[in-house]
Amino acid sequence: MKINQNYSNLCESYLFASIAKKTAEYKAKNPQKEIIKLGIGDVTLPLAPSVVAALQRASAEMGVKETFRGYGEYQGYDFLRNAIVGYYAEKGVSLEIDEVFVSEGAKSDVGNILDIFDKDNAVLIPDPVYPVYVDTNVMDGRKIIYLEASAKNGFLPPPDPSVEADIIYLCSPNNPTGAAYDAQGLRAWVDYANDRGAVILYDAAYECFISDKSLPSSIFEIDGAKNCAIEFCSFSKTAGFTGTRCGYTVVPKALIRDGASLNKLWLRRQSTKFNGVSYIVQRGAEAVFSKEGRGETAKNIAYYMDNARLIGDAVAKKGAYYTGGKNSPYVWFECFDKKESWEFFDYLLENYGIVGTPGAGFGEAGKNFFRLTAFNSRENTRKAVDRLLSK
Amino acid sequence: MKINQNYSNLCESYLFASIAKKTAEYKAKNPQKEIIKLGIGDVTLPLAPSVVAALQRASAEMGVKETFRGYGEYQGYDFLRNAIVGYYAEKGVSLEIDEVFVSEGAKSDVGNILDIFDKDNAVLIPDPVYPVYVDTNVMDGRKIIYLEASAKNGFLPPPDPSVEADIIYLCSPNNPTGAAYDAQGLRAWVDYANDRGAVILYDAAYECFISDKSLPSSIFEIDGAKNCAIEFCSFSKTAGFTGTRCGYTVVPKALIRDGASLNKLWLRRQSTKFNGVSYIVQRGAEAVFSKEGRGETAKNIAYYMDNARLIGDAVAKKGAYYTGGKNSPYVWFECFDKKESWEFFDYLLENYGIVGTPGAGFGEAGKNFFRLTAFNSRENTRKAVDRLLSK
Repeated sequence: MKINQNYSNLCESYLFASIAKKTAEYKAKNPQKEIIKLGIGDVTLPLAPSVVAALQRASAEMGVKETFRGYGEYQGYDFLRNAIVGYYAEKGVSLEIDEVFVSEGAKSDVGNILDIFDKDNAVLIPDPVYPVYVDTNVMDGRKIIYLEASAKNGFLPPPDPSVEADIIYLCSPNNPTGAAYDAQGLRAWVDYANDRGAVILYDAAYECFISDKSLPSSIFEIDGAKNCAIEFCSFSKTAGFTGTRCGYTVVPKALIRDGASLNKLWLRRQSTKFNGVSYIVQRGAEAVFSKEGRGETAKNIAYYMDNARLIGDAVAKKGAYYTGGKNSPYVWFECFDKKESWEFFDYLLENYGIVGTPGAGFGEAGKNFFRLTAFNSRENTRKAVDRLLSK
Repeated sequence: MKINQNYSNLCESYLFASIAKKTAEYKAKNPQKEIIKLGIGDVTLPLAPSVVAALQRASAEMGVKETFRGYGEYQGYDFLRNAIVGYYAEKGVSLEIDEVFVSEGAKSDVGNILDIFDKDNAVLIPDPVYPVYVDTNVMDGRKIIYLEASAKNGFLPPPDPSVEADIIYLCSPNNPTGAAYDAQGLRAWVDYANDRGAVILYDAAYECFISDKSLPSSIFEIDGAKNCAIEFCSFSKTAGFTGTRCGYTVVPKALIRDGASLNKLWLRRQSTKFNGVSYIVQRGAEAVFSKEGRGETAKNIAYYMDNARLIGDAVAKKGAYYTGGKNSPYVWFECFDKKESWEFFDYLLENYGIVGTPGAGFGEAGKNFFRLTAFNSRENTRKAVDRLLSK
């Protein structure tokens, strides 16, 4: 019996555990000081009323013989996939219903999609980035090439023609940097991938925060993307589903690699290792696309975006270079006095009573940067901003 | 870019598609004939009232700021894991809360657990069996050894000391044969696995149908099992959750292989590629263990078991050898006149208007057997039985 030895190559991440420990220690020493947490990447506003109503209706249906539902479709119910197809149509992207796969979250799909690729592929991963991309490839033993993002490229690195990659991760708007590619930036990546026969794994979990209408909110808005990209999307940030769990992945039928349809491979993977998302949750997700649901969730997104703007403006007033804050709930800024990010964590906590996330937690290239998030209340966000600007 | 070539070694399964096609063709030719479907492995009774109430309560909580829940624990909420630990305590099995992993279904876990094992392990899979065990290992390119179940061993094959296996699948009560190991039968497997340092993947998805109190309903009732087994369980059949989606997997801390804790490896896998089950669904699952929930779900299980008994008795009266029907919702019997199972499918449809599942769909060793299920209504089950006994 041999275990998967690649697991021993994983770095243990103590990022959020370290933050919690440092915060608790500070609190114990300074019990009278009020700490404001702008470190979390989790939503705080409750589900929209129309979503709750849909969840309750579906729960009731499950208790009645005539409307009870057993196993659903592996790819998700038609009612939800049709709503997703309609949402893409508004972006000018035409999808077929069987290009859409409903899942219990983008994180699972981003990890599980690797099942359909050989271990022997070179993987290009931006730095800094959401750690799941790296960890899931380390688990499989794939070769990882890092793509450095920095202030020089606005944390939106372009393709480097000298790098040979087979699988490319892009996250836009980015976690943690909040930077979002424009159409030209994405087109360069689509061309690069199509030239090389590579596949782009496009994480669009934060697409709902794009308010600048000139920016693409799906990679499929770019010509040729259906020949090279898989897009991951989620209701987590769009509609506060982090604890309700629903996402979806788009695998175009035009995406053929190594003689195989990736759509068919993914269907085979999902139908073998997955049994579909809860009917109740799918009804909740469907309600997100209703007229009422759209209005209600837009209000929540606007609330977070106003917080993001407040934070971004404050950071700018402090003279720091930053990305995000505009089309993203994250503000990513250079630590004052170019401090190292863990050192800056202590500095921010001690001087302003604010907790954030050190950039080093997202990769080597983040070591002088810091992430603040827009998910706290308006009141606390204002208080944090006032503190930042007070001295 | 190379795809995972192992996918090309998968056999396309047309089992249920073929059944649907044959049934539709027969119906088109014989529109006046009423067909009774005893082929499905899906539940039909609605969720218990106390479960529906819990789902609705949790949905309402998600719509209120003070009770809203974002990301939960990767392993599941304590309230549910504590309830599961309590359920095992009733079986005389003592578990720690962090040995329990809540998931959105046993199928996903049975497939995903393979991530933590090296490709280079020999896998022992009973034949006939639930096709997911085979397919998920083919996807990884592992060597599969088949273990033939037959009437000779009551479809409960014992270990063969001459076979060297690293990963062993056991499903008890079995899908499709309905046969359930007794303590002595399981002990032989536990000893075999511990002797060799192998791991048993024990699928207990049908444990709630065990009515014979002398039979173990968890492999952990056997001494030494915590040193060699992982157990997969589900609310699908226990409480009609096939469309609601919740299961759990028990990975004992005492299970060490190749110098590593499989509990820690699985936690690492799940925390990297999974984000927990919907809070709402977990509250529904918790209600299954409440006093009301236990009573309500027990009534549903008894209903199915009465159906199973009717089918088993009828098959016996026809003089056929059969397994299951007692501690399982499945009746697995030898095709009359030793017909081949697909031929028997046609025979049963044409002569009795009954649809079932040909044993060949579950493996080579099932080719002269047939599966009928207890999940239809009492009325239809009685009608089918009357037809069988009428000629």
